[in-house]
Amino acid sequence: MSTTDDKKVYRASTTAPVNIAVVKYWGKRDAKLNLPTNSSLSVTLSQADLRTLTTASCSSTFAPAQDSLTLNGAASDISGARTQACLRELRTRRAALEAADPSLPKLSQWPLRLVSENNFPTAAGLASSAAGFAALVRATADLYGLPADESELSLVARQGSGSACRSLFGGYVAWRMGSRADGTDSRADLVAPAAHWPQMRALILVVSAAKKGVSSTSGMQQTVATSGLFKERIASVVPANMDAMEAAIRDHDFAKFAEVTMRDSNSFHATCADTYPPIFYMNDVSRAAVRAVEAVNEKAGATIAAYTFDAGPNAVIYYLEKDKAAVLSTFYEILGAEIDGWKEEARTVGASAVQLDEAVTATIKGGVSRVIMTGVGEGPAKTEEYLVQEDGTPVIR
Amino acid sequence: MSTTDDKKVYRASTTAPVNIAVVKYWGKRDAKLNLPTNSSLSVTLSQADLRTLTTASCSSTFAPAQDSLTLNGAASDISGARTQACLRELRTRRAALEAADPSLPKLSQWPLRLVSENNFPTAAGLASSAAGFAALVRATADLYGLPADESELSLVARQGSGSACRSLFGGYVAWRMGSRADGTDSRADLVAPAAHWPQMRALILVVSAAKKGVSSTSGMQQTVATSGLFKERIASVVPANMDAMEAAIRDHDFAKFAEVTMRDSNSFHATCADTYPPIFYMNDVSRAAVRAVEAVNEKAGATIAAYTFDAGPNAVIYYLEKDKAAVLSTFYEILGAEIDGWKEEARTVGASAVQLDEAVTATIKGGVSRVIMTGVGEGPAKTEEYLVQEDGTPVIR
Repeated sequence: MSTTDDKKVYRASTTAPVNIAVVKYWGKRDAKLNLPTNSSLSVTLSQADLRTLTTASCSSTFAPAQDSLTLNGAASDISGARTQACLRELRTRRAALEAADPSLPKLSQWPLRLVSENNFPTAAGLASSAAGFAALVRATADLYGLPADESELSLVARQGSGSACRSLFGGYVAWRMGSRADGTDSRADLVAPAAHWPQMRALILVVSAAKKGVSSTSGMQQTVATSGLFKERIASVVPANMDAMEAAIRDHDFAKFAEVTMRDSNSFHATCADTYPPIFYMNDVSRAAVRAVEAVNEKAGATIAAYTFDAGPNAVIYYLEKDKAAVLSTFYEILGAEIDGWKEEARTVGASAVQLDEAVTATIKGGVSRVIMTGVGEGPAKTEEYLVQEDGTPVIR
Repeated sequence: MSTTDDKKVYRASTTAPVNIAVVKYWGKRDAKLNLPTNSSLSVTLSQADLRTLTTASCSSTFAPAQDSLTLNGAASDISGARTQACLRELRTRRAALEAADPSLPKLSQWPLRLVSENNFPTAAGLASSAAGFAALVRATADLYGLPADESELSLVARQGSGSACRSLFGGYVAWRMGSRADGTDSRADLVAPAAHWPQMRALILVVSAAKKGVSSTSGMQQTVATSGLFKERIASVVPANMDAMEAAIRDHDFAKFAEVTMRDSNSFHATCADTYPPIFYMNDVSRAAVRAVEAVNEKAGATIAAYTFDAGPNAVIYYLEKDKAAVLSTFYEILGAEIDGWKEEARTVGASAVQLDEAVTATIKGGVSRVIMTGVGEGPAKTEEYLVQEDGTPVIR
């Protein structure tokens, strides 16, 4: 097929999930390539609750001859080095296919029109860049007909946003830090699919924060440069946590999974606090959530819930389906029925709420603006739902 | 002089200061002897603002034949192992003097009546145990006529409360961790007297906290046992901070003093946060104070103020006399004239207040209950003010 008079609009759509790390990524050894100072491990969350839908399209008819990205209905800047790195990598791989097979249309030479939307509130402070870059890379790779090896694509997504490389898989995902200078071994791989341990649930307490003080990108580099404790995290703490976490997942050992999750979150925020000047992502609401989780576990006489915090005050609380009554009832009672985000099962699990310190209860009640109930989920999925119509017009909803 | 019919009431009174560490003590290698895992360094604060007054008395007439301690007008338990260790050590030393000189009255055999009071609000959450044990040891040593070597007495005070050993000196004081198992080289010594750098000031923001979650005694042992980062603090961070701090004091280098003070406080609270379960002493008010100090320094274009936090939310802000306008005016404007503790100079330094983020201002305003303005000061001082009268009756005020 000749491409000179090819007016067709080529399209591919995918959805991609959010992931929440249980062994945290914090620190780059190469900022340009997003090469991390440590390996990390995450749980992919269900796309029914949190997902990005992205359509990648291209056509010789698209003008001006420039790539574009529409995000949640608004034009988004794609001139940044990271987005450009992703697009360049993808084009290079497409161009190689075209060189090998001259019958292929020259998609690599045409402008890309990318349209993307999230099914979750963008103001919630949830790291949407992981899902966003994973969707961008997956959709464009599908558009370009690239081989569907997720680990190979993770090398591309990583350059957009480090943690995006983990959102190319469902289930339980490791990002191996690698050792090569060019980053070709710094990629994600599957520790276990969602089906291996499908009972994992997550309750996210969305904390109303005035604003984020320090971006994670600059924050982590300040930590690397100034924390006297950070090197110990890299040299000893994280490698041990990675090993323990992989074993816990393999063995379906929730108590161990939870302990490592909480310890790693503590360690990560400790190195933030040890940064100069110090970085504080957790606030009094976050700390009250920690105390609530500890109380839930104490009442249960077992570790049935685990908190973890990313670069912000939101609490993500992991638990197993079988313990939903003990975990959900406590937070349902504190936050009340009227707060956004409860699913029916939270309203019906019955009363086994833990009695908490009054100050803890008041702090959580006053500081949590909504909840998100979700669980472990699948990786990116191809879809026939397009955000670019057949004629190339973006769908804006 | 025979002692068998000696009815005299023997008395000695001393005052002792509070000290606030700029390189923190956190972690015991021997809990019974209070032997620390690291050296520490503190600034002794002026007794005009914060001091304990203690009278030690003894008499063959005191009955029942039992030691007693009255603290701020109320009977205080002295059966604890730490107080008992101090009294035993002091008696042993007195007994040695009596054995060497039989003409001495047998004070070591008589009950001790100790009466003590603080000139600062006990509810303020300021570590009063350092001043308390320093005063108890100094007064009893004076009563017993023991040699007045502060470093030697620090071996006794240390067994009452680790940081008490530093309150036996004025000015800038190091507690050398030592290496011997019996603790005989774990003692305080003078880095520099107050007169070496008398311009050091401290503004204490007393933060209203619901309650202290974890005592420092149990907290530090949890940190030693569970923090993956703590050993790096001990092995590298603190030794470097000790060296840098001693050089900064020697050279009157406030910027270096301040940086090490803030970094060491950050490092200490980081290891608390890395404890499992995590220990949080700082709260949102404390963190707002950190941001305010950073803003003061940023406006000054130099490091003119340093925050430090002990095992509680109160902020201690060190600065030099010459920079009082820049430091005091900022906090005076935030907190207002009506809050307790301002001295006249805070009201008259003029307006050079830093404009702060509104949330920071509101958090400080809402969370600070009083201020204490003080500065570097002298060590324990003998006084003729007695809290036990000549007839042995305690003075209760």
